[in-house]
Amino acid sequence: MKYVKYLVVLLVVVATSNNVLRAQDHPKLILTQEGVKEIRANLGNLPILDKTLAAIKEEVDAAIQKGIDVPVPKDYSGGYTHETHKRNYRLMQKAGILYQLLNDYRYALYVHEMLKAYAELYPTLPVHPKERSYARGKLFWQCLNDSNWLVYASQAYDCIYDYLSKKERKHLEKNLFKPFADFISIQNPHFFNRIHNHSTWGNVAVGMIALVVDDEDLLERALYGIKDVELNTGTKDNDGGFIIEEGKAAGFYANLDEPFSPDGYYTEGPYYQRYAMYPFLIFAQALQNVKPELKIFEYNDDVLVKSVYALLDLSDQDGDFFPINDGQKGMSYYNTSLVNAVDVAYYYGNKDPRLLDIAQKQGTVVLNDAGLAVAKGLKNGEKQPYVKKSMQLRDGANGEQGGISVLRKDKLELVFKYTAQGLSHGHYDKLSYSFYEDGDEVVQDYGLARFVNIEQKGGGNYLKENKTWAKQTVAHNTLVQDQSSHFGGKYEIGSKNHSEYYLFNSEDPKLQVVSAIEENAYPGTKMHRTMVMIQDKGWQKPIILDVMQVESDKAHQYDMPFYYLGQLMTLNVPYNTEEVLRPMGKDFGYQHIYKEGDAKLTNENLKFSWMANNHFYTLTSLATEKDSLILGRVGATDPEFNLRRDPVLIHRKSEELNTVFASVLESHGTYSPVTELAVNATSNIKNLSKVYDKDGYWAIRIDTVDGRKNVFVFSAVNKATDQNHNISIEGLELKWKGPFALININ
Amino acid sequence: MKYVKYLVVLLVVVATSNNVLRAQDHPKLILTQEGVKEIRANLGNLPILDKTLAAIKEEVDAAIQKGIDVPVPKDYSGGYTHETHKRNYRLMQKAGILYQLLNDYRYALYVHEMLKAYAELYPTLPVHPKERSYARGKLFWQCLNDSNWLVYASQAYDCIYDYLSKKERKHLEKNLFKPFADFISIQNPHFFNRIHNHSTWGNVAVGMIALVVDDEDLLERALYGIKDVELNTGTKDNDGGFIIEEGKAAGFYANLDEPFSPDGYYTEGPYYQRYAMYPFLIFAQALQNVKPELKIFEYNDDVLVKSVYALLDLSDQDGDFFPINDGQKGMSYYNTSLVNAVDVAYYYGNKDPRLLDIAQKQGTVVLNDAGLAVAKGLKNGEKQPYVKKSMQLRDGANGEQGGISVLRKDKLELVFKYTAQGLSHGHYDKLSYSFYEDGDEVVQDYGLARFVNIEQKGGGNYLKENKTWAKQTVAHNTLVQDQSSHFGGKYEIGSKNHSEYYLFNSEDPKLQVVSAIEENAYPGTKMHRTMVMIQDKGWQKPIILDVMQVESDKAHQYDMPFYYLGQLMTLNVPYNTEEVLRPMGKDFGYQHIYKEGDAKLTNENLKFSWMANNHFYTLTSLATEKDSLILGRVGATDPEFNLRRDPVLIHRKSEELNTVFASVLESHGTYSPVTELAVNATSNIKNLSKVYDKDGYWAIRIDTVDGRKNVFVFSAVNKATDQNHNISIEGLELKWKGPFALININ
Repeated sequence: MKYVKYLVVLLVVVATSNNVLRAQDHPKLILTQEGVKEIRANLGNLPILDKTLAAIKEEVDAAIQKGIDVPVPKDYSGGYTHETHKRNYRLMQKAGILYQLLNDYRYALYVHEMLKAYAELYPTLPVHPKERSYARGKLFWQCLNDSNWLVYASQAYDCIYDYLSKKERKHLEKNLFKPFADFISIQNPHFFNRIHNHSTWGNVAVGMIALVVDDEDLLERALYGIKDVELNTGTKDNDGGFIIEEGKAAGFYANLDEPFSPDGYYTEGPYYQRYAMYPFLIFAQALQNVKPELKIFEYNDDVLVKSVYALLDLSDQDGDFFPINDGQKGMSYYNTSLVNAVDVAYYYGNKDPRLLDIAQKQGTVVLNDAGLAVAKGLKNGEKQPYVKKSMQLRDGANGEQGGISVLRKDKLELVFKYTAQGLSHGHYDKLSYSFYEDGDEVVQDYGLARFVNIEQKGGGNYLKENKTWAKQTVAHNTLVQDQSSHFGGKYEIGSKNHSEYYLFNSEDPKLQVVSAIEENAYPGTKMHRTMVMIQDKGWQKPIILDVMQVESDKAHQYDMPFYYLGQLMTLNVPYNTEEVLRPMGKDFGYQHIYKEGDAKLTNENLKFSWMANNHFYTLTSLATEKDSLILGRVGATDPEFNLRRDPVLIHRKSEELNTVFASVLESHGTYSPVTELAVNATSNIKNLSKVYDKDGYWAIRIDTVDGRKNVFVFSAVNKATDQNHNISIEGLELKWKGPFALININ
Repeated sequence: MKYVKYLVVLLVVVATSNNVLRAQDHPKLILTQEGVKEIRANLGNLPILDKTLAAIKEEVDAAIQKGIDVPVPKDYSGGYTHETHKRNYRLMQKAGILYQLLNDYRYALYVHEMLKAYAELYPTLPVHPKERSYARGKLFWQCLNDSNWLVYASQAYDCIYDYLSKKERKHLEKNLFKPFADFISIQNPHFFNRIHNHSTWGNVAVGMIALVVDDEDLLERALYGIKDVELNTGTKDNDGGFIIEEGKAAGFYANLDEPFSPDGYYTEGPYYQRYAMYPFLIFAQALQNVKPELKIFEYNDDVLVKSVYALLDLSDQDGDFFPINDGQKGMSYYNTSLVNAVDVAYYYGNKDPRLLDIAQKQGTVVLNDAGLAVAKGLKNGEKQPYVKKSMQLRDGANGEQGGISVLRKDKLELVFKYTAQGLSHGHYDKLSYSFYEDGDEVVQDYGLARFVNIEQKGGGNYLKENKTWAKQTVAHNTLVQDQSSHFGGKYEIGSKNHSEYYLFNSEDPKLQVVSAIEENAYPGTKMHRTMVMIQDKGWQKPIILDVMQVESDKAHQYDMPFYYLGQLMTLNVPYNTEEVLRPMGKDFGYQHIYKEGDAKLTNENLKFSWMANNHFYTLTSLATEKDSLILGRVGATDPEFNLRRDPVLIHRKSEELNTVFASVLESHGTYSPVTELAVNATSNIKNLSKVYDKDGYWAIRIDTVDGRKNVFVFSAVNKATDQNHNISIEGLELKWKGPFALININ
């Protein structure tokens, strides 16, 4: 392997002082001269900042000891050259900061030597040898990672800019930065001129270097895309997303306009929002510092700061993001891009003291003006608890493409998704939900089929099961018609549609409701799902009422999968188990589910109890004797063991025109393996019944073991909050105001 | 349901003072009068004791508010009457303590009223209506639980003894305590006169009440069993254990002699030792207090205190007991019986300050003289860390029936089992092992098939899969011959045999070795397994070398199951996966394993890498082209979903006479879902080879990717530590002293 290696010796010998004569006008990008001055003055005085600085210093010092390694590019993610270049850009950025804050030339020298090594290597490089990407980079297998490099390297360059001679700067800009910026933009317009997180990185990379070197043309390209370029519409990227759609604007502003809703929801979901936030916010800081007249943080009604809150609110009790769409489980607000996001939202937002709570949990700050403000706030004891509440976020640039809601109470969290497709990382999962207790998944969203950056598993990239399984409808807790996915699993159709918000109301924490409609997933079929979090007397914890109304112009088979995690305790109907396990189907994800057992249902309620994380749960569902139940297991047709062997329960209705799936989900008990005591191990629901269903009204009655009788009434046609309603049920006259109510009939 | 309910009102009204005139000679059993005096004097001054007392007070006060409930017995474990009686005896014991420590008559009254309710109910009771037990109780479905009741109730009675009038005492003793003690002994001799944890409870129950009421005959019965009783030998209990074996002694002493080894290992394993410790230690305390002349804590060379250490050392880094034999995972030294054990071992042992470390983690103490001593030790800052070390524990009353070893270094723990059968709770798992990192299972022992006290699952009792799966050899990480279990899975044979210790050496923490032999599990076949924990240069963590030598007089098929937890990353041989999953066999546990895939091996090393708990592991094994590999999944033939769907890898050798299974297990890397960085994701082993195998010597050579070459040499025939050895390998003359050595040949 050919690589350039400079030793520590060299770094110590070449001590220069060529910056004494010039006026200082850098750093200006992320660190500012005022910020540097103030941080230096506060060193030793702000615990979280000092700790962060010490950690970075230790890391960079160790790297300087090891010397510089700039290998010829060769590998995919997870491979040696990939990880080395990735480490390099992070090290450069950190060394640049250390140079500024500690005023120690060794760090500037390190950055300079590394940049020189890149300036020597870069002009010799062809496009990267790995061919999988639709937009191959030079240092990395995709332009995306090359852009990452430039975003970080620009910051490092800004930090040592004044340390370098004019000639040294000219050399780097001519042989490295300018051709680098041109390659990821002009030479890859299908990568650069796009509405996608990849392009955001590209735009920002070009914009960052433009601001450092003060190049207006480059900045223009970053903000508004490449002008006068013609691209073929209709082609797709590796994830199946359209590369170019007709008539779309491009550049940073366009990427800010389109994927963010007015509530700050990023249409790809929190996992990718976390990834995208870094370029958005780092560039916003740079613009704010260098071009304050653009007022970037006020753009689109403060959407950037709102997006940070959206992201925090889309995490569970432990701070892990809900893994909707292509989200890898375990990604959380402890990720470094969220450290930056929280510090930025604090400093450029309203100095919200609740953000200090998250910052303290993160245990680290960014080393710039924003991080300084957070460190001071923490030092001054201004922190207030960040209590996550029930909330909804609209999707779509205008907020008119459905959305996502989280209902919360005590330690329970219900995530209900009725968004648009979510670009190429979206799943075919209209009106799906997931359910958490104590930060643990109870009814899961499967997430993606990928081991990010683990080279042994498909080079760390998306696995083919991501398309054949993870994106398919049956992999989610939502309705499947005729064993086919929403929109036929076709991105062309899915990306043109979105669900419709019906209502969201969390005013009364004891009766929180969210409701949404999907009419396009299966043409001719309307689904209207309403999820209610009810805290009634006699229940220790809230219960979840889930009602999915289905209306169709033809008879269909309907499957309602339920991805409980844990182990079956009881099922109140006799069931068969299979001696031999076979896949349930051939396509749309069914080929990945083994049938482990089945049952014929009756007109009684179906009751399924299971245990997970030492908690007992029960699902009580309306059933008819025409229904059946399938006990399934993920993992069929999985030749490389890429899937988890997770269980699923599928409630099936055959040959139905209009129908309703209704159930109550209870978290009712606990088990301790230490005391071996099982507390409240059984359901408190005696009977669930549909007592009304006509003219756009429906009502579900819940009778409990301890004798409570409640009716939840809902109007699916009139959602005016001041409308009076009135229906007669079993001889009782029920009256209420607004679209829903919980009425006790004891 | 008929039950007696006394209300709080009653308790408040009937304030009595009928104890003023009598001499105080109680409490004397567990609490002593001196202890009470000293605890009272220290109230408010010993944080851990005050906290414990406050918690108990809160619990008992709440119970007093609710009133007394003594229902007619009806249910199995987990059911209402069972759990109520269980709660009652615990409440009485606690209320008794509160009466003594707080000198508040309300608590004595509560105990008295409850005992009166029992004295009213008990004489009316037939044997318990549930018929499953070989020894049905009256309050509970088995005499075992009745005995639990009496052990606790005796303590409560002792605490309020002086509070009661002579007449009141006579009433309770005549109608409740004496008939109760007779029922679980004389009327159930097959329960009482046995060597088993059940009988220990029975003996202790009778002994405790004997000491309170000062009844020498009862005490004699407790200590030495029922005299002159003839029982049928050969009958079995519900777990398949023999009830009575010929010529066995009985009673407390016999139960102390037989199942404890001289090292304090209890032959059923730590899960049952934890359960058994409470009666042993509570009665030992009582004997020490009432009959100090018996010097019970010095009995059998301090075996009782040793047994507490044995138990602590058989827990993982988190304090969870290794789940060998019928052990339920998650049981730990946080269990209340261990709180008692640790306090007793501290107070009646050598005031070992390391035990204070465990006590502090437990966060609670027992409210008696022992707990007082611990609370004082903690208050005085005498605590020292309890660092668990590598160790071996011999099994068998004389320590000559094999044993169990744990090799430890850094965060790794290897458990190697070569014990006797372990009575009726033993598994057919000679020479099996399990492996832990950071307190997490990596290569698991399956544990039991039972949901203890979870009534929905088989009444909370052993499930039939415990016999058909959990006990079988193939459910363990050890050798299976011809798809049959050790001893043919027959308890009659297994219980007469044990493995043989060969050597254990942990003197050098960088080269720890344990080795044992099994010659009876498969007649005509000798297995000799040696496990080595090696910490060599260049490795961040120790590796495990595992060599199983097999010699047989006939050709057999050999399966070596490997119960890794987690997900497959890579396998270095091409493998097939099954479209349809079928059970691997009909019996001996094979009926519970699905075959998911298989591979034909080659003469190269087999390398299997997987990820678990965000760590990367690799198993590198010697292989030949005659070998095959099966990728299996637990869960076949499981009509009630009682089994976990855990994976297994089975290395198969067919038609072999003498053979060797040799492998190296590495923990080599980590993954973070937050940074998405994979560090050291691949194995550091380049090649593993057997370079010598004759005349009782064998040698395994390990070549690493970074160029180290080591040979581990072993003498399977001469284990003298001063013996010089010398063999020639590939032209190299290797010399060493003692039975083993690791020799670098770079």
